[in-house]
Amino acid sequence: MSDDVRNALSALSNISEHWQPHRLASINDYDLKVVKLQGEFVWHTHPDTDELFLVLSGELTIQLRDRDVILGPNDVFVVPKGVEHCPKAAAEVQAILFEPQGTVNTGHVGGSMTSNLRELG
Amino acid sequence: MSDDVRNALSALSNISEHWQPHRLASINDYDLKVVKLQGEFVWHTHPDTDELFLVLSGELTIQLRDRDVILGPNDVFVVPKGVEHCPKAAAEVQAILFEPQGTVNTGHVGGSMTSNLRELG
Repeated sequence: MSDDVRNALSALSNISEHWQPHRLASINDYDLKVVKLQGEFVWHTHPDTDELFLVLSGELTIQLRDRDVILGPNDVFVVPKGVEHCPKAAAEVQAILFEPQGTVNTGHVGGSMTSNLRELG
Repeated sequence: MSDDVRNALSALSNISEHWQPHRLASINDYDLKVVKLQGEFVWHTHPDTDELFLVLSGELTIQLRDRDVILGPNDVFVVPKGVEHCPKAAAEVQAILFEPQGTVNTGHVGGSMTSNLRELG
């Protein structure tokens, strides 16, 4: 495999922490990130950008204020800019995120679950 | 499933043509597209943007002028802006593309394999 080819599942197998996105690749000024999710995150919005979720394994619920969006493997959902949301997963989920560089996982709320973007080892 | 959740593999199961990207989702001014690839494409570059490939099934070769990049399931590769490339696949490949809206599949060369972005039925 070339040095500049990254495998999403291999990268995830090296991540143990939940809710900590790691950069898999960059395209222009956007990042493709991999992340493991389990438990409940925090309600937040991204005031300046949409946020795309692509689930690789497991079942992810993205709670919106008016409904729950349930995502399984290969499901894609875009949380529109400014829409409050709170992901949760009863069991571990592996997912890909796509968003502009500099997007913070906790959006406008910050707090203890804020994670700087990690680089893969 | 909510109307705004899209499954990448379900979408691909409804596509029969090769080399014709279909929009699965949009995030800001970028598109996530699904595409089936088989055979050899044309050498081209995208002068203004990187282009991200994420393979879902099959084996995709992205020929560069100095080497071949081989991608299997869950592999991600970014063709840098301005780098000449020509994808080929001996057997059918299902893949996701990420790129700015308006990116044309044949880049600067055009020709008979140029496909307008398709919308899913």
